[in-house]
Amino acid sequence: MTKVLQEHLMKFLEDKNLIIVSNRGPVEFSRDNGKIFMKRGAGGLVSTILPLVERFEGVWVSSAMTLEDAEVALGYPENRVPVPLDDPKFNVSFVVVDREVYEDYYSVISNPLLWFLQHYMWNTPYGPDIDERIYDAWDKGYVHVNREFASRVIQEVDKNDKEPLIMLQDYHLYLCPGFIKKEMPEVFLSHFIHIPWPQRDYFKILPEGMRDAIMEGLLSNRILGFHIDRYCNNFLECCEDSGYDVDYEERSVIRDGERTFVKSYPISIDPESIYRTANSHLAMEKEDLVKRLKGDMFLIYRTDRADLSKNIIRGFKAYELFLREHPEFHGRVKFLATGKPTRQQIREYREYMDKISEPVDDINRRYGNEEWKPVEYICRADYELVAAAFKRYDCLLVNPIADGMNIVPKEASLINEEDGLIILSKNAGCYEELSDDVIGVNPFDVKETADALYYAVKADMAERKKRVQGLREKVVKRTIYNWINEQFNDFKKLI
Amino acid sequence: MTKVLQEHLMKFLEDKNLIIVSNRGPVEFSRDNGKIFMKRGAGGLVSTILPLVERFEGVWVSSAMTLEDAEVALGYPENRVPVPLDDPKFNVSFVVVDREVYEDYYSVISNPLLWFLQHYMWNTPYGPDIDERIYDAWDKGYVHVNREFASRVIQEVDKNDKEPLIMLQDYHLYLCPGFIKKEMPEVFLSHFIHIPWPQRDYFKILPEGMRDAIMEGLLSNRILGFHIDRYCNNFLECCEDSGYDVDYEERSVIRDGERTFVKSYPISIDPESIYRTANSHLAMEKEDLVKRLKGDMFLIYRTDRADLSKNIIRGFKAYELFLREHPEFHGRVKFLATGKPTRQQIREYREYMDKISEPVDDINRRYGNEEWKPVEYICRADYELVAAAFKRYDCLLVNPIADGMNIVPKEASLINEEDGLIILSKNAGCYEELSDDVIGVNPFDVKETADALYYAVKADMAERKKRVQGLREKVVKRTIYNWINEQFNDFKKLI
Repeated sequence: MTKVLQEHLMKFLEDKNLIIVSNRGPVEFSRDNGKIFMKRGAGGLVSTILPLVERFEGVWVSSAMTLEDAEVALGYPENRVPVPLDDPKFNVSFVVVDREVYEDYYSVISNPLLWFLQHYMWNTPYGPDIDERIYDAWDKGYVHVNREFASRVIQEVDKNDKEPLIMLQDYHLYLCPGFIKKEMPEVFLSHFIHIPWPQRDYFKILPEGMRDAIMEGLLSNRILGFHIDRYCNNFLECCEDSGYDVDYEERSVIRDGERTFVKSYPISIDPESIYRTANSHLAMEKEDLVKRLKGDMFLIYRTDRADLSKNIIRGFKAYELFLREHPEFHGRVKFLATGKPTRQQIREYREYMDKISEPVDDINRRYGNEEWKPVEYICRADYELVAAAFKRYDCLLVNPIADGMNIVPKEASLINEEDGLIILSKNAGCYEELSDDVIGVNPFDVKETADALYYAVKADMAERKKRVQGLREKVVKRTIYNWINEQFNDFKKLI
Repeated sequence: MTKVLQEHLMKFLEDKNLIIVSNRGPVEFSRDNGKIFMKRGAGGLVSTILPLVERFEGVWVSSAMTLEDAEVALGYPENRVPVPLDDPKFNVSFVVVDREVYEDYYSVISNPLLWFLQHYMWNTPYGPDIDERIYDAWDKGYVHVNREFASRVIQEVDKNDKEPLIMLQDYHLYLCPGFIKKEMPEVFLSHFIHIPWPQRDYFKILPEGMRDAIMEGLLSNRILGFHIDRYCNNFLECCEDSGYDVDYEERSVIRDGERTFVKSYPISIDPESIYRTANSHLAMEKEDLVKRLKGDMFLIYRTDRADLSKNIIRGFKAYELFLREHPEFHGRVKFLATGKPTRQQIREYREYMDKISEPVDDINRRYGNEEWKPVEYICRADYELVAAAFKRYDCLLVNPIADGMNIVPKEASLINEEDGLIILSKNAGCYEELSDDVIGVNPFDVKETADALYYAVKADMAERKKRVQGLREKVVKRTIYNWINEQFNDFKKLI
């Protein structure tokens, strides 16, 4: 616990009512054999913040994602579920809405509309078509759910004598701070955005009314966090474009006489948790599979949700080009890719899933033979397998066309045992921190990525060791605890 | 002639060797019945600049676009063709390259690569794939043709004792000024870019090597012109990103101790030429067709090359939504669209052509009947028909997703006889000048565009008259002669 937070911040939080607000919550309920089970969420955010919420008896406001979430929630007054049920340490306050409302909020507006916008991913001659369907989803879905979240938060503030400290998360909840502030003008609000922020020309794809609403919401926060300075600056320029008074020196925006500070807090990882996973029995077992696949070959590895931002197809095209240009490496390299389908209720994501298999099949058909299968694509969510592959890769490929941070290089370099190199997109947020010790590529440049693969297979051990050493030093020096402490320190200054 | 240029500029040009450099030249040769004919190019640029080139015995360097261009060119020393052949007033110096080289330069790099980039049009999860094919087209096509253009220009400078004044045009020739400057460091170079310039995040889709080469080329000019300040600023930010020293106050960039001034010169039209076309016999004839199509209905009109930037599909979708929401206007409105196919050698353009017909057929099938065909799409290049439609529209729709300037609203408002309103995309360069008297729309917003159509059909005559009056005042106040005089005035200060 002390590991997580500096001593003076522990004191600061003692008399605070800590309210975390995010679409996906820290726990999820599901049913097995008729009985309802609770599962903790994975990921650094939950594993870092949850102990704080528990320690300070805070509350987490989040969407009911499953039928069982809703069922459990509706069994408690105000959908306020004590967690764990048998020995409560904190509460989850569930926002429960109708399925169609949730779909409008999540699968129309949050994704693809906002997600595509913030990752420069719209095929602009054809999409988005901002028609009455989108406006409807905005009003009945996004606005409505944001209001529901705000109501829950207001309820939690009212419930508790302690001073509220509200931490909103991400792009699903842009309007929520505005709705809260309208009811409670004095309350302290902060918001962290985990994805990129686009430049003003591109942001203007959104209708002015939606942009204004988003700005009004976000500028209701006292602190607005992004991963890197570039996103902060892009956001400030959008604010100026919307007519707000921007102080670029201080990185802040003035609205109705109040100031929102726009700051970067690059997220990182929890090293202990990575080591633990890597050394788990299950990961050890999976390592056998990875070793078998690898044989005595040079292992190129990637792992991503099948999101269009992850640039999986160009990764395979680059590998194909590498194989075409360097036949001497046929039979001596293996490309292992793991990843799970994501957001399959959205057409663009289903199409992308379909298209990923094309280059994989093409490469295996064109270059493979009985002894050698150039690409292995394992399409499932299996974090222990990922950890096992992290240990054994010779080269990790992380080439998103845009990515808020991407913590894969940070996790992977910590536990890799082969002095593996990392090829990293210059458009991943983490490139700003790691550029010295990775092979940086333009994600659109298939040729450069193919050349980077060639560079990686040819690199000598001295270089590999030096780079992996450099990466590890950076990663252990800045963990997710820095991320959380920096934010609380800034909150403390302003409260 | 004096109309074109201010007196002191006439003097300035007397002792100059005026060299215009553009991919498409002022004349084109073709064959009819075995005999070779010369045709003058249309458009404001040619009709404005050509008289100057003639008057001052200048030269125009351009690509041989047709087989006959090449044939004629090869019949003269150094491909230098006197024009007109029988009574020469100036020369066209043709750049003749092999067909594959030209295709690489024009149909791979200039379009779609640069054009899509500068109009924010890439479907980034899938394109561009910057692979060895693109690099090859860059080296063997774009770089090569730019070098050829530079050689021709250098030849023209050498040929003439007068001081050279070089005016390069557009995105096909970004590298050319750099190649000229390397040979002739003291020569005066200017370049005008007729399309938008994107913001830095998006510009970075291009490989760094290509960006550096483009910057080196463009910063070899003393003056670099764009249509509007927004493009200038975007360009300056890209320069800063490439490591150049940028003076935002003075809008200039310092490279090797020399300064490039980045200025906006919003292009406009030649009113006389528009009036002439409108009053031509041919246009009068075409007006009958337009009147017949229009009947006593409210005429919505648009005209565009079938370029993906023109947003033709969303225009029809907006009309469909308008019809759906306002059945009281069925049978009382007509949407006439004219336009020609463009760049059909490029896959993306062929696909777009195919897709345009879908909403047209859909609307006519869904809403049309024996008496009423809601949409008429005339797919051919017919400037007199366009002029006739300009005279008769009640509402002109110009909704590009991005457009350097777009002079359609300027031309159309001058000759319209119905006090027609203009719905104009806020992403068209001309929106900056015309915003007060048009109905501005977000081009991605189909709903807003549909609402704008409804607003237009409902607008009273007083408003229509006021707006068209306002437009005309602005257009006649700033013609293409201002555009050319401003540039020469700036040249004069620096030479």
